Amino acid sequence: MLLNNFQQDTGLGFLEQEPKTVDLPELEFLERGIWEALSDSEGPVREMCSHILNGRGKRIRPLLVLHSGLIFSGLTSELRNAAVAAELIHMASLVHDDVIDNSSIRRHKPSVNSLWDNTYAVLCGDYLFAKAFSLMSSNTLTGCMNYMVEAIGNMCRGEIEQANNRFNFDLGLDAYYDCIAKKTAIFLACCCKSGAHASGADELYLKLVGEYGLNLGFAFQIIDDILDFSGRVEVMGKTRYNDLRQGNITLPVILLLNHDRHGPRARDIIKRHTSVEQLVDHLVNLVHKSGVMDKAFDVARTYITKAKQCLSLLPGSRHTDFLRNLADKLLLRTS
Amino acid sequence: MLLNNFQQDTGLGFLEQEPKTVDLPELEFLERGIWEALSDSEGPVREMCSHILNGRGKRIRPLLVLHSGLIFSGLTSELRNAAVAAELIHMASLVHDDVIDNSSIRRHKPSVNSLWDNTYAVLCGDYLFAKAFSLMSSNTLTGCMNYMVEAIGNMCRGEIEQANNRFNFDLGLDAYYDCIAKKTAIFLACCCKSGAHASGADELYLKLVGEYGLNLGFAFQIIDDILDFSGRVEVMGKTRYNDLRQGNITLPVILLLNHDRHGPRARDIIKRHTSVEQLVDHLVNLVHKSGVMDKAFDVARTYITKAKQCLSLLPGSRHTDFLRNLADKLLLRTS
Repeated sequence: MLLNNFQQDTGLGFLEQEPKTVDLPELEFLERGIWEALSDSEGPVREMCSHILNGRGKRIRPLLVLHSGLIFSGLTSELRNAAVAAELIHMASLVHDDVIDNSSIRRHKPSVNSLWDNTYAVLCGDYLFAKAFSLMSSNTLTGCMNYMVEAIGNMCRGEIEQANNRFNFDLGLDAYYDCIAKKTAIFLACCCKSGAHASGADELYLKLVGEYGLNLGFAFQIIDDILDFSGRVEVMGKTRYNDLRQGNITLPVILLLNHDRHGPRARDIIKRHTSVEQLVDHLVNLVHKSGVMDKAFDVARTYITKAKQCLSLLPGSRHTDFLRNLADKLLLRTS
Repeated sequence: MLLNNFQQDTGLGFLEQEPKTVDLPELEFLERGIWEALSDSEGPVREMCSHILNGRGKRIRPLLVLHSGLIFSGLTSELRNAAVAAELIHMASLVHDDVIDNSSIRRHKPSVNSLWDNTYAVLCGDYLFAKAFSLMSSNTLTGCMNYMVEAIGNMCRGEIEQANNRFNFDLGLDAYYDCIAKKTAIFLACCCKSGAHASGADELYLKLVGEYGLNLGFAFQIIDDILDFSGRVEVMGKTRYNDLRQGNITLPVILLLNHDRHGPRARDIIKRHTSVEQLVDHLVNLVHKSGVMDKAFDVARTYITKAKQCLSLLPGSRHTDFLRNLADKLLLRTS
């Protein structure tokens, strides 16, 4: 079924500080699809879902599904459902992440677990997963489902590996990249492939949009890791240094530990610290002093370049432009 | 694909105290299918899955899928996968339940959350959900998936309602039945329908096996609720009165509150209690004294009778007999 009921909207959440140059009627369309999918929920489930939806996330994943698909065909209800399912899965993983991290703030607002407690948050996440699969299975989006299942499996594995490596300062670059691939990049790749698949793209194109999503995902997570050190608290809506405080070793710290001049001092701090707060304070100082933040940003920029190279091999359209634009804007993101 | 590699096995977990009269090669077959589905897991995920699987659950849900299907056709890989998926979903929900209830014991063994912590347990549950859907989507079991999605959505809603009604002693019978339908009975109904669907059963038969599963599920949950008051700790592998201690109002308590003679005394205890332990002690005494346990058991027996009536309208076979036998044995279960 071809749909033609786009409405005008203003922009992407995380671009709100930017001039509103991006024309994105798709966003409003998506938003309605997400609300619709959750419209039969009631009681506390409904309240929790509303709370999460009103947080107005960036909707990057469903937009990736949508635009990756629109490159190859018009807007169908299948494509829309595939996009909504991706956002529901993302929402579910965020709710569970907050339980895991014991976070009290999400997108400037109290998290579900802090408002309703862990019981509700675990179940709300499960409910959202079930909703996503319900949407895909009742519309026989088997191909898209395979991608989403791949994404969820990897997210779980990535999060478990991360938890397993808490305060492991011997974590190498390879292990870091492997972990962020599973945690973030594969999901973004799967979103792109899910959209392209729903629009009947051929194997070569599926591979290319997947590569684009994967590279975009690496850059996305690296910038996330950078923002944990340098982001403005009032823009991010959460405190800084959460990763390090929880023992998650990210790119800036790995680069610091391998730094010719500051590496040995960093290792000394790790050996001698008496409290996590002291460890965090001292390492954060060194991270800023050593220039590793710029290096980490260079790595992110390289991934963005690679992502855009994949796009150059796709058919040109305003949707390919959207994906290119999204990649560029990612480097400017502040939350 | 028709499969013919059944192996001999001895019996159902919860029938181990019973004479081994039931010939169940399907159980071993299922067991191998479950291990196989999880064979690509590694690290902590693998350890957690092994821990859960070694707990040797009753495998009621996959056996329901399998035998409900075998009434209508031979053993196919589709049917086997549908059965394995049901058990993976059940395992996932158990792991999440233990996080929610903060339980430290599951099937005589430490729970996943107590051995690995909540982070791993939440993720392990998500991983198992993803595995189940992976199994169904890669085998295009769309119909079965619809049933499983219905089951998960209802389980979440039921658990949330239960949490929402903690220590609500005004909970009526209707609300109780509605809650246990969502928590337990619909899942069992969906297992039966999933199996029958995978075997190409027609609408009327789908409805009948579903009704059987629903009634069986009501009885199953009511007996579970009874065992929380009267079960032998060493057989159940967990302490008694957990429901009441957590504020979950189950059938024996509802019957007690509506009891002509003991109801008013029970309400008085609820009004005047000074601690949960005191409340539990006094209510438990009254539950045993008032004879409501027998009444609750009568209700369970009625559901079993209804379940068996549905079976009498199905084609006769050793698999219909299995389902009938399972219903009868349920009334004898001690854990």
